Amino acid sequence: MRVNIMVGGPTDLIPKDQVLKRQNETWIGVDHGASLLMDWGICPAAAIGDFDSTARTEMDRLRERVAEIRTFPPAKDFTDTQLGVATAIRDYQPDQIDIWGATGGRLDQLLANLYLPLQEDFYSYLPKIRLIDNENIVRYFLPGTYSIYEEPGLDYLAFVSLTPVRGLTLPDEKYPLVNWNGTIPFSWSSNRFTSIVNHFSFDRGIVAVIWSADLHD
Amino acid sequence: MRVNIMVGGPTDLIPKDQVLKRQNETWIGVDHGASLLMDWGICPAAAIGDFDSTARTEMDRLRERVAEIRTFPPAKDFTDTQLGVATAIRDYQPDQIDIWGATGGRLDQLLANLYLPLQEDFYSYLPKIRLIDNENIVRYFLPGTYSIYEEPGLDYLAFVSLTPVRGLTLPDEKYPLVNWNGTIPFSWSSNRFTSIVNHFSFDRGIVAVIWSADLHD
Repeated sequence: MRVNIMVGGPTDLIPKDQVLKRQNETWIGVDHGASLLMDWGICPAAAIGDFDSTARTEMDRLRERVAEIRTFPPAKDFTDTQLGVATAIRDYQPDQIDIWGATGGRLDQLLANLYLPLQEDFYSYLPKIRLIDNENIVRYFLPGTYSIYEEPGLDYLAFVSLTPVRGLTLPDEKYPLVNWNGTIPFSWSSNRFTSIVNHFSFDRGIVAVIWSADLHD
Repeated sequence: MRVNIMVGGPTDLIPKDQVLKRQNETWIGVDHGASLLMDWGICPAAAIGDFDSTARTEMDRLRERVAEIRTFPPAKDFTDTQLGVATAIRDYQPDQIDIWGATGGRLDQLLANLYLPLQEDFYSYLPKIRLIDNENIVRYFLPGTYSIYEEPGLDYLAFVSLTPVRGLTLPDEKYPLVNWNGTIPFSWSSNRFTSIVNHFSFDRGIVAVIWSADLHD
């Protein structure tokens, strides 16, 4: 099964139409994300966070409608997103975890979200986690050989070495790459698919693949 | 001297008031960024990029007003930001390089910008480069012991290991850390200053420090 996690990032970066299409899937609302889901007519299976800036009437609404509410102190050791993903794993052992609202605004939070799948607690789920916003999908890959597919509306393709990487090869993308080794993180941005399916491989490290649209050109 | 580089990211994330205060400083306009500067009454010293989606009339305006225009093919080996920073270094050997418009929109471009100072060509300038948007300032640090100062309006403080890091110590921040070693990139987000000046140190790796504001709470 697939679990969706709504984090509290800027609402204007969240593709509401895609969220509404999944209203019958399982949702976990994290902090503001829980209220946003309710506003959009989706009752999350769980609401999690410190809720330190959530009004009392809003908390009442959540308590009335949401089966599981887990509150944490603001000065906790985990980010809200970590708590949300941990809950998804504990309760559902899902095949896929899609995280919404994880981008925009504070860059420290964006990077905490981006790097989350690399952490020991989540590493076994790394290939199953995606970040989605209104112009980006991020997926994570461990060493291996992969087929990747075009996503409608997202014309740009990028390969990002989040760690030192060895042997990165893009055999059939618009801008190919052969056996690249990088010791620093690097974003091979603005590549393109050359057909519905393309391929890539690498031997060591962690690579994020980003499908994106340029809405600002 | 300080050189400012305006990159072509989403305009609504660029703090226009801060840009206008620097209208008498040296600016380099990268792709859309050159037109944006002109729109805001700032004539860049140089305009650089592929300009592949810039209208002919707009190019005429740039040619008429900007002393140095350097155009590159869209399928070039460097990003627009890389070309802008390289020009800044070549022409001015500046003490500080502030990059604006480098965030928001496509995450592959944001990460390409974030990781730029780590590249061999720019590494000697790494401590002099900052990314600035309307709710974040990012600075880069090599191993050492540092004092950091509060930035007005940016209440959150974060330490991000962009590479494996050893010995990260936050002695006097709200959430201290002693001699942390990390093999994966990690964002220690949502920390706070405890006074106008705080300190940190580390022995190995590259750390980004992010000052940020939460405009979405």
